[in-house]
Amino acid sequence: MDSMFEETGRTPLERYGEFGLIDLLTKNIRLKNSSSLCGVGDDAAILDAAGRVQVVTKDLLAEGVHFDLTYCPLKHLGYKAIAVNLSDIAAMNAKPEQVLVGIAVSSRFTVEAVEELYSGMLLCCERYGVDLVGGDTVSSQSGMFISVTALGYGQKGEIVRRNTAKSGDLICVSGDLGAAYAGLLILEREKQVFLKDPKAQPDLDGYDYILERQLKPEPRLDVVRLLHERGVLPTSMIDISDGLASESMHLATDSALGCCLYEEKLPIDTQTYQTLTDLGLLPTTVALNGGEDYELLFTVRQADYDKIKDLKEVHVIGYMTAEAGDYALITNDQKKIALKAQGWDAYLKHRNENRKNADLEEA
Amino acid sequence: MDSMFEETGRTPLERYGEFGLIDLLTKNIRLKNSSSLCGVGDDAAILDAAGRVQVVTKDLLAEGVHFDLTYCPLKHLGYKAIAVNLSDIAAMNAKPEQVLVGIAVSSRFTVEAVEELYSGMLLCCERYGVDLVGGDTVSSQSGMFISVTALGYGQKGEIVRRNTAKSGDLICVSGDLGAAYAGLLILEREKQVFLKDPKAQPDLDGYDYILERQLKPEPRLDVVRLLHERGVLPTSMIDISDGLASESMHLATDSALGCCLYEEKLPIDTQTYQTLTDLGLLPTTVALNGGEDYELLFTVRQADYDKIKDLKEVHVIGYMTAEAGDYALITNDQKKIALKAQGWDAYLKHRNENRKNADLEEA
Repeated sequence: MDSMFEETGRTPLERYGEFGLIDLLTKNIRLKNSSSLCGVGDDAAILDAAGRVQVVTKDLLAEGVHFDLTYCPLKHLGYKAIAVNLSDIAAMNAKPEQVLVGIAVSSRFTVEAVEELYSGMLLCCERYGVDLVGGDTVSSQSGMFISVTALGYGQKGEIVRRNTAKSGDLICVSGDLGAAYAGLLILEREKQVFLKDPKAQPDLDGYDYILERQLKPEPRLDVVRLLHERGVLPTSMIDISDGLASESMHLATDSALGCCLYEEKLPIDTQTYQTLTDLGLLPTTVALNGGEDYELLFTVRQADYDKIKDLKEVHVIGYMTAEAGDYALITNDQKKIALKAQGWDAYLKHRNENRKNADLEEA
Repeated sequence: MDSMFEETGRTPLERYGEFGLIDLLTKNIRLKNSSSLCGVGDDAAILDAAGRVQVVTKDLLAEGVHFDLTYCPLKHLGYKAIAVNLSDIAAMNAKPEQVLVGIAVSSRFTVEAVEELYSGMLLCCERYGVDLVGGDTVSSQSGMFISVTALGYGQKGEIVRRNTAKSGDLICVSGDLGAAYAGLLILEREKQVFLKDPKAQPDLDGYDYILERQLKPEPRLDVVRLLHERGVLPTSMIDISDGLASESMHLATDSALGCCLYEEKLPIDTQTYQTLTDLGLLPTTVALNGGEDYELLFTVRQADYDKIKDLKEVHVIGYMTAEAGDYALITNDQKKIALKAQGWDAYLKHRNENRKNADLEEA
């Protein structure tokens, strides 16, 4: 009658990294159905849908771990919960068409609160032409949990995975980096002020862009479309949830390659740069490790460079190398240093560790 | 900076029933993609998959609400989490082929505990030929949450919905009823003994069948297959998660009909009957309202009666009537009483209310 978790062993979850636990749990899975083209291990699973290919992805967000309702409005949270799943579909070079939504809420939430959350979800669905086709809303004893499943479609041969980059391919990133993390730092700062003095007014003026990037990220389906229009099929792709460094190494590792990034090529918005400098942080560090940018990181053949070089939304930031496991950054003063998947200062390190523990498995 | 749920209104979630909140949240949804054949409102969403039709369902289970780890072994819990989703696919007359799994666990769980949970999930997948193709394991601040998405397939014209029964159709149920609830009562009884005296040994002898029905339900894919082999296409179908009375009324309401059930036809296993009688409960009440049976409730045309009458696993228990909103039970002494979706004694009533609040929305 004792609870099982006390009987079954003693390995703390923290001992496994983000990809250790998934390997442990899924190593014995063998796909049985011909409709299951590809399972665990990419941004989404790949299923046969007769004329087309279907991709399916699923994310679970936990209050206090993935979001903080002190400063995250419920409508934004709903929007973001959908957006990050559509971003996973975009990272497969596919078009999202359906989502299913599961919400668990404790009795401290009102109907209006759940409606607010839902309205943000529906707004994001509306914006990206996606249908909300099902779900489940249940009560929880404590906290809010949001689970979203997104379904997307692509043509056979045009689904892009993580493990198919080739040596010499150019590494590209959409948009700019580090803004979402800069926005989080401002929200955390104002939360501390608020906790000390609940009457204090938040000082959020001049931070619009970075706050929006944190609270309301957009899936880069426009970039997927742009590349398609230019006739460019990426050789590998992933979306940036953990940070550029981590995701670059992910593409390289999965493709059995190395990678080399150029500090001077990292796209950083002016507001991001200014805010981070004011806070005493190196913008490069945050661009590499901040996470939650939900930009697309992808590789293209060198032969495709001319087709993308004038795209304002796409930046070439490095290239894949033949040396598997060699992850390098060329600094602004032309030094070659090892690319690391964690930040260099304590705050970033702490946060990254939280994230590593939080996102034990992704697929 | 104040949290949104304090700002946005005051309607407690309890004010909405299981289907009130889903109506509220989804009433403005209009499907936009041609691949979205049918959204919220059945056991699963229905998508176009070129030659076939795809059905997708999603369930979220919360610790303390949907399961109690004091007596639910993690392996059984994993099995059940998959099984109840496969049951939703079965209820669409479809064949499940893939699942995606999301798990949120607090730090009180060990790696071995998560592995144990996963092993139960994989066992159920294995048993029913389903592929686990993706998922997400994250940390939670408190408690365990399990989110499962299941994908299934069927032939066009053979997907069975809830709203297509016709007056005069026979109401059929698979297997037997009330056993899962009887098993729960025994587990609850032993939990109370354990809480008073942690050294007491649980007295579970002679309850194997009802405990198994509670802890490890099986999706009735065998019944789907049997009906197919006999050339019987149900005119409507649902799986029994909330209880026979509630689900019968659900089929009737969605089809704008009434229904009439016969008490004497309700299939109740001997062990269930004996246990409930020993506990001072009316077996009929529990068969009607216990819930979690995960049997299939479906209607067939009268002309199909000869094709199913010798099926041991299928029981004809009533028929659909033309009087919309008229839900009746003919008792063993030939009285016609109103069928209610809640139990008659306080304990059942309390539990049903818990369930109503817990399962605010299903699709």
